[in-house]
Amino acid sequence: MESEEHVSLQTPSLNDKRQPTDPSAKGTETAVLESAFDKSEPPSQQRVHSVSISMTPSPIKGILFNPESIFNNGILDSSSAATSSSILPEAAQFHSHALPKSSAFEDQAIQIGHFPYQPSIESSKDKRFDNFKTWSGKLERQISLVSLLKGKAQRKSDQLENAFVQTTDQVDPLPADRYFDALEGPELDTLKASEEILLPEDKQWPFLLRYPISSFSICLGVSSQAILWKTLPTSASTKFLHLSIKPNLVLWCISVALLVVLACIYLLKIIFYFEAVRREYFHPIRINFFFAPFIALLFLALGVPPSICNNLHPALWYILMTPILSLELKIYGQWMSGGQRRLSKVANPVNHLSIVGNFVGALLGASMGLKEGPIFFFAVGLAHYMVLFVTLYQRLPTNESVIPKDLHPVFFLFVAAPSVASMAWARIQGSFDYGSRIGYFIAMFLYLSLAVRVNFFRGFKFSLAWWAYTFPMTGAATATIRYSNEVTNVATQALAVALSLIATLTVMALFIVTLLHAFVLQDLFPNDIPIAISDRNPNKPHRKWYQSKHGNPSDKDIDKSSKSATGSEKRDLEI
Amino acid sequence: MESEEHVSLQTPSLNDKRQPTDPSAKGTETAVLESAFDKSEPPSQQRVHSVSISMTPSPIKGILFNPESIFNNGILDSSSAATSSSILPEAAQFHSHALPKSSAFEDQAIQIGHFPYQPSIESSKDKRFDNFKTWSGKLERQISLVSLLKGKAQRKSDQLENAFVQTTDQVDPLPADRYFDALEGPELDTLKASEEILLPEDKQWPFLLRYPISSFSICLGVSSQAILWKTLPTSASTKFLHLSIKPNLVLWCISVALLVVLACIYLLKIIFYFEAVRREYFHPIRINFFFAPFIALLFLALGVPPSICNNLHPALWYILMTPILSLELKIYGQWMSGGQRRLSKVANPVNHLSIVGNFVGALLGASMGLKEGPIFFFAVGLAHYMVLFVTLYQRLPTNESVIPKDLHPVFFLFVAAPSVASMAWARIQGSFDYGSRIGYFIAMFLYLSLAVRVNFFRGFKFSLAWWAYTFPMTGAATATIRYSNEVTNVATQALAVALSLIATLTVMALFIVTLLHAFVLQDLFPNDIPIAISDRNPNKPHRKWYQSKHGNPSDKDIDKSSKSATGSEKRDLEI
Amino acid sequence: MESEEHVSLQTPSLNDKRQPTDPSAKGTETAVLESAFDKSEPPSQQRVHSVSISMTPSPIKGILFNPESIFNNGILDSSSAATSSSILPEAAQFHSHALPKSSAFEDQAIQIGHFPYQPSIESSKDKRFDNFKTWSGKLERQISLVSLLKGKAQRKSDQLENAFVQTTDQVDPLPADRYFDALEGPELDTLKASEEILLPEDKQWPFLLRYPISSFSICLGVSSQAILWKTLPTSASTKFLHLSIKPNLVLWCISVALLVVLACIYLLKIIFYFEAVRREYFHPIRINFFFAPFIALLFLALGVPPSICNNLHPALWYILMTPILSLELKIYGQWMSGGQRRLSKVANPVNHLSIVGNFVGALLGASMGLKEGPIFFFAVGLAHYMVLFVTLYQRLPTNESVIPKDLHPVFFLFVAAPSVASMAWARIQGSFDYGSRIGYFIAMFLYLSLAVRVNFFRGFKFSLAWWAYTFPMTGAATATIRYSNEVTNVATQALAVALSLIATLTVMALFIVTLLHAFVLQDLFPNDIPIAISDRNPNKPHRKWYQSKHGNPSDKDIDKSSKSATGSEKRDLEI
Repeated sequence: MESEEHVSLQTPSLNDKRQPTDPSAKGTETAVLESAFDKSEPPSQQRVHSVSISMTPSPIKGILFNPESIFNNGILDSSSAATSSSILPEAAQFHSHALPKSSAFEDQAIQIGHFPYQPSIESSKDKRFDNFKTWSGKLERQISLVSLLKGKAQRKSDQLENAFVQTTDQVDPLPADRYFDALEGPELDTLKASEEILLPEDKQWPFLLRYPISSFSICLGVSSQAILWKTLPTSASTKFLHLSIKPNLVLWCISVALLVVLACIYLLKIIFYFEAVRREYFHPIRINFFFAPFIALLFLALGVPPSICNNLHPALWYILMTPILSLELKIYGQWMSGGQRRLSKVANPVNHLSIVGNFVGALLGASMGLKEGPIFFFAVGLAHYMVLFVTLYQRLPTNESVIPKDLHPVFFLFVAAPSVASMAWARIQGSFDYGSRIGYFIAMFLYLSLAVRVNFFRGFKFSLAWWAYTFPMTGAATATIRYSNEVTNVATQALAVALSLIATLTVMALFIVTLLHAFVLQDLFPNDIPIAISDRNPNKPHRKWYQSKHGNPSDKDIDKSSKSATGSEKRDLEI
Repeated sequence: MESEEHVSLQTPSLNDKRQPTDPSAKGTETAVLESAFDKSEPPSQQRVHSVSISMTPSPIKGILFNPESIFNNGILDSSSAATSSSILPEAAQFHSHALPKSSAFEDQAIQIGHFPYQPSIESSKDKRFDNFKTWSGKLERQISLVSLLKGKAQRKSDQLENAFVQTTDQVDPLPADRYFDALEGPELDTLKASEEILLPEDKQWPFLLRYPISSFSICLGVSSQAILWKTLPTSASTKFLHLSIKPNLVLWCISVALLVVLACIYLLKIIFYFEAVRREYFHPIRINFFFAPFIALLFLALGVPPSICNNLHPALWYILMTPILSLELKIYGQWMSGGQRRLSKVANPVNHLSIVGNFVGALLGASMGLKEGPIFFFAVGLAHYMVLFVTLYQRLPTNESVIPKDLHPVFFLFVAAPSVASMAWARIQGSFDYGSRIGYFIAMFLYLSLAVRVNFFRGFKFSLAWWAYTFPMTGAATATIRYSNEVTNVATQALAVALSLIATLTVMALFIVTLLHAFVLQDLFPNDIPIAISDRNPNKPHRKWYQSKHGNPSDKDIDKSSKSATGSEKRDLEI
Repeated sequence: MESEEHVSLQTPSLNDKRQPTDPSAKGTETAVLESAFDKSEPPSQQRVHSVSISMTPSPIKGILFNPESIFNNGILDSSSAATSSSILPEAAQFHSHALPKSSAFEDQAIQIGHFPYQPSIESSKDKRFDNFKTWSGKLERQISLVSLLKGKAQRKSDQLENAFVQTTDQVDPLPADRYFDALEGPELDTLKASEEILLPEDKQWPFLLRYPISSFSICLGVSSQAILWKTLPTSASTKFLHLSIKPNLVLWCISVALLVVLACIYLLKIIFYFEAVRREYFHPIRINFFFAPFIALLFLALGVPPSICNNLHPALWYILMTPILSLELKIYGQWMSGGQRRLSKVANPVNHLSIVGNFVGALLGASMGLKEGPIFFFAVGLAHYMVLFVTLYQRLPTNESVIPKDLHPVFFLFVAAPSVASMAWARIQGSFDYGSRIGYFIAMFLYLSLAVRVNFFRGFKFSLAWWAYTFPMTGAATATIRYSNEVTNVATQALAVALSLIATLTVMALFIVTLLHAFVLQDLFPNDIPIAISDRNPNKPHRKWYQSKHGNPSDKDIDKSSKSATGSEKRDLEI
């Protein structure tokens, strides 16, 4: 793939007339471009043609409700207010940066055309984020408004889609391949060098756009600690520590508060930047984090302090499990059906998040005294865990790009499912029997396997997702306490204490690092690049031009052959 | 491998004397073609050359026993008699269709050469089916006859092979790759556009040739209904419906009759068209349907009406399981051994048919009071089900072509194994324990997962195989009744009734559709394309010829290097 | 890959000046070659250039301790003493064989340059083995000596690495890809035609270099027989045979003696030829045989005659399991981490050796009365066995090269894990319950599956590793005896006796064959080719030449594009 891009990118310099058409140029635009090309118009004029299409007709300011104005003054956002006020020079600078390029290579300018809005001089507001806004705030975009009004009967997503009239492709969800093509890294969150994004890279985006679903990982980390600190003082095997139940109460309250705050913010994101949420939902890795808030709720129910409530109503369990079951039906279905999100392609340790909910749910249900429901989720979890475990262990070449090459904190998610499963089974069975032990020992082996490699870990670019990688450690500690209740001796008790200590220290360390990033470095929420990737490969338009000239028809299986064709063409031209 | 060939194939354009040899040109033909080409003979004469080789020496009518004459007057075949009488004009038309082609492109004629028999004008009988006849009915084909007589000591398949003296390749079973190359669709039953078949496409074949092994699916569908209607009236949880046992008796009798009739017809196919059976047996998907008659027998034993027999003799179980075990040894062995039929290549939901027999057998054996045998089959089934489940869920890119892209009724086979396994384990254990429930709940989740996607189903080209996709629904209904016996409450009872209803209605709907196809549309048994695929890729010679002249490769399996080679070559020519 | 080679291999004929450069030509050599090429020096001079680089500066004899002198007089080695005395003519002959080649094709000579030591006339000792010696015995190689002395604080492997100053690449372990590229066969022990090795192929190497880790397979075979012959007389179901316990004692003593002798020899190999051990350790198949000595120890503990000891101390179990756990952490970690030794690449039936230790350990531990430890290993074994079983059954195309195409004795390893696991679980549970039976029946099915194919076996090139393939049969026999204790009837007793007989006869047959190879054919320890493969691909230099000319820098991502480039370049040159 890489080579292909490089070959095609060289071509402009060889063929001055050549026109790297706008990536969003389809349908009408293509015709314009072709006619322009046929008439051999001077390049500058060509640019006018194409730009005039991708530009919005009139640059009158938005009138509709503008979310930015709220969040610029919001609690958590400190810099975007400043940014938006100083937007004019920045935008100018952004353009002054782009323009020389386009004068040097006449066609480059058109390539920039994939920013759907060319900011005009008189606009004092950066409109480049409008694409991701649910209500884009432009009266003059009448087509979208009309269809917005008509669309009331339609589904919500349809409403949103209508807001993207200019970039028709965005009506469909971004294909999974685009994410794989454009991004890299264990969390698919780093933009590849060759790619460009839809939003400005050089300025800080509105807070809501930078706020990812993976923020809920913090809730997972803290609420699982609440469970640990509920188990420690109440377990027979750790009674000798004479710990108070208070840390549980404190942690639980923090967790509840955190979850409420984070959920509210995300709700606002859903309301105001639905497209961004949608793009997170279609991101092959991020989708798994959509389980996080619901798992956190289960954790809260499991870790509820005895002083607050002793017996939760079974109905709560059914309510909490409904979203998890729905998400599972969606995601496991994607794995199995032959689409772009099939398992052999997206398999990644983060998938454990979509499995572990089953076991946490089974554990909670069994703790509440339910029987059939917990077994149902245990069975579903077991079947899919087996599939995932085998797939991840195999390291299929097809999902090589998604699984990190080096060891990475994400691998700790491997410990989560078997340790929670062992506790769940123990609850279902009524005792920590052989089945539970098998699960527990698998978790221990995986933990040990990671622990001995701890100095090989390469994942030092902090991200909020790391919080998700702490709850498996806490889970393993909790499972060890349960196990040491069954097999009480110095070794198991020491192990339980040691693992609890490690888990708590890790969470504390992560807490400090997070605070550091939030308040000192102020980069806890960097620009969320993965949601802004372009929906078209920036290198492909080239090829389309080539095709139209040489009559190479098929669009799909142009891969390697196009490389060679371009390559050899270059040579011919040189001759 | 391909690419290597292409490298050498480029040379012709550089080296005009070189000859784009025919891939099907082996042995004698190669010599003929080469001499023809070297002498620059007119194209028509070339054709004579090649045709003279593939044609049978003398066109005297068959004398040996001709199966067609029987089945043209058979019960189920209404149209083939008419067809065979009007064979002369049709054959002519078939040829008039082929001839212009060959005059247009001189070498095309050679490609047609893979029809082993060129029907001659004076023959009033279409001899093109002889290839698939066990006794081909041609006195003059002495070589084959002699070897036929000699071959009495040989295996039966050897006899058949001798009938293919002209096309020596057909002596070996068709390689699995040919099926994948030539066919497409979820049941690998649609011919690809580029492929040609050995039998005439434009006329209806003899009934036996059109009668596929998948017809036994009907038995599976009906006999599983017999079991459901035996379970419904006799279960404690569905006692409240006050259903009669009579439908069970009726359905069971229908099933027995159906199985006997279908088996007899298939037996005739084995006798008269052994090559067709052999090609079904080597078809990667069809092979699984060879389990169907034996699973149907197990279903009959399970659903036997109490009025007929209450206690089956254990010996019956051993007799019924023998063919299943034999087939499994064959097929699982193919999966594991490194041949063309290895699992990573042939994995497909239809494989569930080759797994489910184990669980049905275990269920029957345990119902009969056996112990070790059922556990044996349960263990074998479990191990291989796990392998298949993981493989299908992974959707390896290697078997992408076999698993349907869209949702398709075949996916319902996913429900079969776990639901039958749960019943089998309940019988073995003596109670519907946690193990059984895990199996049952996995089945339920898969069912639910399909049910929520039911409006995405794309498989509306009816085929007899659909009957096989109904028995999992019946199995799930039966398992639910068993489960509701254990956990009796309104919810489980309602679920049991609902699932039974759905299963019965589906079978009824399918019954009507089948009748419609059988009597109104009269296309219940269309030409069975998959068994008639050519044993040679028709595109390979073409491509070579075509490439050397035009340099545009076109097809699917043109590797990367060949593309580039051709691409650059094109440029050279332009220069 | 193949196609690439072919493209480049054709080029010489088109371009006579082109030079198939030395595969080991990197760094300085490349410069030499290029200068040679640029100046169009006569070929003979080119050779001098390259040889002068790869040759060692001065050929003074080794002074340090020389292991060869010991083992040439060793017990098991009969021929190497003679060989080393007659080294002069052989070396000469070796060169006289190489030289004509190089005069015929001028550049071939440079390719020979990868033998790090060009034996000089005055040296009466073959120095080509020095590469693999821990102490290479060359005073003049001062750099290595100095660093050897300095390296005392370093790890042992570092010491060794310093011995390879000339061939700097060998400092790093050989990448797994090299083994796959250079070797073939089910045990990756046959050199591919295109490859060359570092050690002389035409003479017998020192015994220690020829002594592979797979020799420990013999211990596995014999000690498992000791267990069988302990089980046979002491089991209730086989009491009727009235067998003596004496064969157990005899076999056990032989096993102990064998293990001690083999271990001592291997210890010497570790001391004197650490590089050879290291290369065995990095060999994707061989690594699994490192489990063999430890599994043999477990077998000895299991098969200890009652007359010697009745109750082993539990501490023994912990001692024995430590190396197995360590190896597992290493190897399973490699499977999962994304390196070259990931499971989808190295999966092979021999991997069963790295799984079965868990079950043998669990069996031994449970027999000793331990509880938690055995379950731990059982759990670890179960999880990884599942992964391996699925992976092997799938026959992923990525590990196609490692799994034998035909049936091969190695497939019997499939039977080992489930049969031992069933016994282990029976011990842990206290009875041969359903879980044990599932394991046992899976083993039986796999055994049967292999037995019916026994006449397809293709693996008649005897190797010591075959001994490893006998212990699964013995394990299956022992498991059958255990099973027949539970289900005692004529059938199970007959099966137990039959399987025991088969296992014992197989071991006896193998014993005879081994003796035959050891004393009659004297080829029990042939040159151990896999450890001597060159660390560079002899076919790659081409590309390097191309790169150095055209400035294509990256070595890794030369894939399809490079092919096409070469292809089109060829054409350009023609033009």
